[in-house]
Amino acid sequence: METLAESHRETNTSAAAPAQTASQADARHVLHPWADLSGLGEQTSLIISQAKGVRVRDSAGKTYLDAIGGMWCMTLGYGREELAEAMADQARRMAYYTPFGDLSSEPAARLAERLSQLAPGDLNRVHFTTCGSTAVESAIRIAHYHFAAQGKPAKRHVLSRINAYHGGTYLTQSLSGKDADRTLFQYEADFVHHLSSPGHDPDRSNVSAAEKLQTLLEEMETEILRIGADNIACFIAEPILASGGVLTPPEGYQKATFEMCRKHDILYISDEVVTGFGRLGHFFASEARFGIQPDMIITAKGLTSGYQPLGAVMISDRITDALAKAAPKDKPVFSNGFTYSGHPVACAVALANIEIMEQEDICGHVRDVGPYFIERLRELRDNPIVYTVRGDHLMACVECWTGQDAGPNAANMALAQKVDAYCQDAGLLVRPYENLCIMSPPLIIDRTDIDRIVATLSDALAKAQADLAAGNI
Amino acid sequence: METLAESHRETNTSAAAPAQTASQADARHVLHPWADLSGLGEQTSLIISQAKGVRVRDSAGKTYLDAIGGMWCMTLGYGREELAEAMADQARRMAYYTPFGDLSSEPAARLAERLSQLAPGDLNRVHFTTCGSTAVESAIRIAHYHFAAQGKPAKRHVLSRINAYHGGTYLTQSLSGKDADRTLFQYEADFVHHLSSPGHDPDRSNVSAAEKLQTLLEEMETEILRIGADNIACFIAEPILASGGVLTPPEGYQKATFEMCRKHDILYISDEVVTGFGRLGHFFASEARFGIQPDMIITAKGLTSGYQPLGAVMISDRITDALAKAAPKDKPVFSNGFTYSGHPVACAVALANIEIMEQEDICGHVRDVGPYFIERLRELRDNPIVYTVRGDHLMACVECWTGQDAGPNAANMALAQKVDAYCQDAGLLVRPYENLCIMSPPLIIDRTDIDRIVATLSDALAKAQADLAAGNI
Ligand SMILES: Cc1ncc(COP(=O)(O)O)c(C=O)c1O
Ligand SMILES: Cc1ncc(COP(=O)(O)O)c(C=O)c1O
Repeated sequence: METLAESHRETNTSAAAPAQTASQADARHVLHPWADLSGLGEQTSLIISQAKGVRVRDSAGKTYLDAIGGMWCMTLGYGREELAEAMADQARRMAYYTPFGDLSSEPAARLAERLSQLAPGDLNRVHFTTCGSTAVESAIRIAHYHFAAQGKPAKRHVLSRINAYHGGTYLTQSLSGKDADRTLFQYEADFVHHLSSPGHDPDRSNVSAAEKLQTLLEEMETEILRIGADNIACFIAEPILASGGVLTPPEGYQKATFEMCRKHDILYISDEVVTGFGRLGHFFASEARFGIQPDMIITAKGLTSGYQPLGAVMISDRITDALAKAAPKDKPVFSNGFTYSGHPVACAVALANIEIMEQEDICGHVRDVGPYFIERLRELRDNPIVYTVRGDHLMACVECWTGQDAGPNAANMALAQKVDAYCQDAGLLVRPYENLCIMSPPLIIDRTDIDRIVATLSDALAKAQADLAAGNI
Repeated sequence: METLAESHRETNTSAAAPAQTASQADARHVLHPWADLSGLGEQTSLIISQAKGVRVRDSAGKTYLDAIGGMWCMTLGYGREELAEAMADQARRMAYYTPFGDLSSEPAARLAERLSQLAPGDLNRVHFTTCGSTAVESAIRIAHYHFAAQGKPAKRHVLSRINAYHGGTYLTQSLSGKDADRTLFQYEADFVHHLSSPGHDPDRSNVSAAEKLQTLLEEMETEILRIGADNIACFIAEPILASGGVLTPPEGYQKATFEMCRKHDILYISDEVVTGFGRLGHFFASEARFGIQPDMIITAKGLTSGYQPLGAVMISDRITDALAKAAPKDKPVFSNGFTYSGHPVACAVALANIEIMEQEDICGHVRDVGPYFIERLRELRDNPIVYTVRGDHLMACVECWTGQDAGPNAANMALAQKVDAYCQDAGLLVRPYENLCIMSPPLIIDRTDIDRIVATLSDALAKAQADLAAGNI
């Protein structure tokens, strides 16, 4: 951790010396994503102020092993000089120009070219955005446009799934299916439909993967027939559901649902915001892992290794050719996009990120250490408060229970919170969500740090179990 | 332009030498925002590859005076070393950590504190996002949540206006009211309503500002009564409509609509994505120029001087206090936000941007040269193909016509396109939109460059007028 200490210096924020600490300023002035409103202004935030490799340090000087990887996104690890330089170089040369119409920048053009090489099949065209949510928004809008241009404006309904997570906007929150997130906001319910959550945990299920698959496919076909294939534009799916709790569908699910979409002329949108860029050992998992060539793939997060806000929709030539042919002659403009679509600085970082990933064979490394990570984590099932451990390569989740009823009930959630707190005390950050500890470490993690994660978690689980046994939870 | 030439070097994109030029790669692989679909893959894009001050250079080496300012956003001008360094420093120190729940970073906390000082009244809390669209999305969702938490879930309708522009997502495109953008996409029409465009051009109107104001207010009140104030959550308005064509409402409009909203308990959201951060001579125009303290202000673009994707909603304490009090006890989590909300690198750039703006008194400079810019542009009205010139400080627009019917008809649009093309030939970039040349130069522009813009435009107009007279348009 010497490098962290060496690089320490005070942030120069403004001429006048600040009267409040950053943590106080944060409590007073920031409304965080997923903030607990009941404590607004009272909680003090944990300020992460330095970071290097797979470790972060808070403003009080405490260091943590970051098992969250920023938030699924910090793939190359913190403090990569090449990425800092890529952004500064581009900012000096040409920080921004409008990407609208026929204007572009070299980083955006070259990144689109590289992504087309990395993406499966004929996904050779890129629509850039500013984050995952805006990329999902754009994909859905493209599907709408596509069928309307084919003279089928009624083909506009969207199939999503319970426990999906697709973003934070009105439409993408409506597509998402996490019960914990549904609250006093408004949700689109006219054209958005949710199928069942497809997660199948062989350790804890009383049906086989084959049976589960059949049930899911039957439900999907029934829903398609109920709504009418002529009314359905697209199906959107994370290959493995991430924020919903690392839920892996039964073997064959992705391929079978893809084929069902083909049969009914429903576009298949693969949301690889988490599964892409190496987390499962490939730049894109859709084809390499699940054997499908979606009509569109969404990417964000690992695309810039989290160093810059950027999202993208990769679109198949089949669709873009159709768009170009069918666009109305008198109004051929594709009115979708953002001021910062393909921001040159963000694209320059993404290009440098891809270069490093290839030079250091990050995907090969993940294919190597990923199975070890899951195998070691699965040892934790020996502790009785662990209901299950599931995951795939570098996305994983430990689910807690008191031994009574499984699921996100108050008792299990309190127990998992204890585990998280013990981990944090011991210098390990995991992502607490309901009764789960979710993990997605930087892809550069090595076996030694994997062992540290498992050892710290094991201790934390033992302490929480003792608390439970002593009636202290 | 020596500095531009000196800084020139080839971008190192990937190990293998690229077989196609950036412009070819762009044509083949990028789907641009507002692309002309009918020419998809065939057009070659103009690649902007270097930039310094108020000038940009394309990949062929041609230099342009940038009267667009990136796209309303490049406020401090290109190639500012301090901003390049701010991003690289932050990326080295701590490139990213999740902002969810109670986690934060120093740049986000400090930027929220600074914004609270700059914003009017009690707008002391900031919800960060990734761009203008996601900030508008969040503001609408906050309004929805607010009234639902007060036990009024039906109070969810939103008032917007014809010619408004609020973003590129499903909901924000639905809020937008530009006819040219309405095409084969789907639009929210259940809770979104559009009032008339409030633009009033005293030079070309046959009603007085006072009459226009009265008509607008009567329409608004009628619409509120029709929908029912109990069903309306908020009114969203750009103080001056930017992308709709630099449309200035009649004197007193902002204040009167604000008071009408107060009377009916409708939240007032001021979209200052363009008018904020100096374009009208103030950090925020709502109060300084129009005498109102909105419930929420949206900012983006100039917030980072375009160097980084970032957006924010500034929220009044009145609203956040109410949210904190009324959030459901069993589900108090504010499930709105984005992975990259308050990205540390973007926030560090925004902080440096504010510091420079204050040190160099950019707002004072705009208040000084802004009136000169408008005054000089208005001289162009001498040319008969200029229907009108309108604007305010550093946002302006020249509207063309053939002398027959005003408005965005085919003949006027072809004429304006000629003007744009002559400008581009002569090294001036203006933003072509329908029959308008829209301008929003970097705020650092001086009188000499303002004179150059006017001289080049004047020549271009004269040439286009000659073409028209010769029957060549
Ligand atoms: C699968 C998936 N899709 C989309 C998103 C939305 O991305 P963003 O938060 O960048 O808008 C997320 C974010 O966690 C995600 O996990
Ligand atoms: C007034 C206004 N609001 C919102 C937006 C959307 O911002 P963004 O393109 O960053 O999403 C824009 C963009 O031009 C705008 O002009």
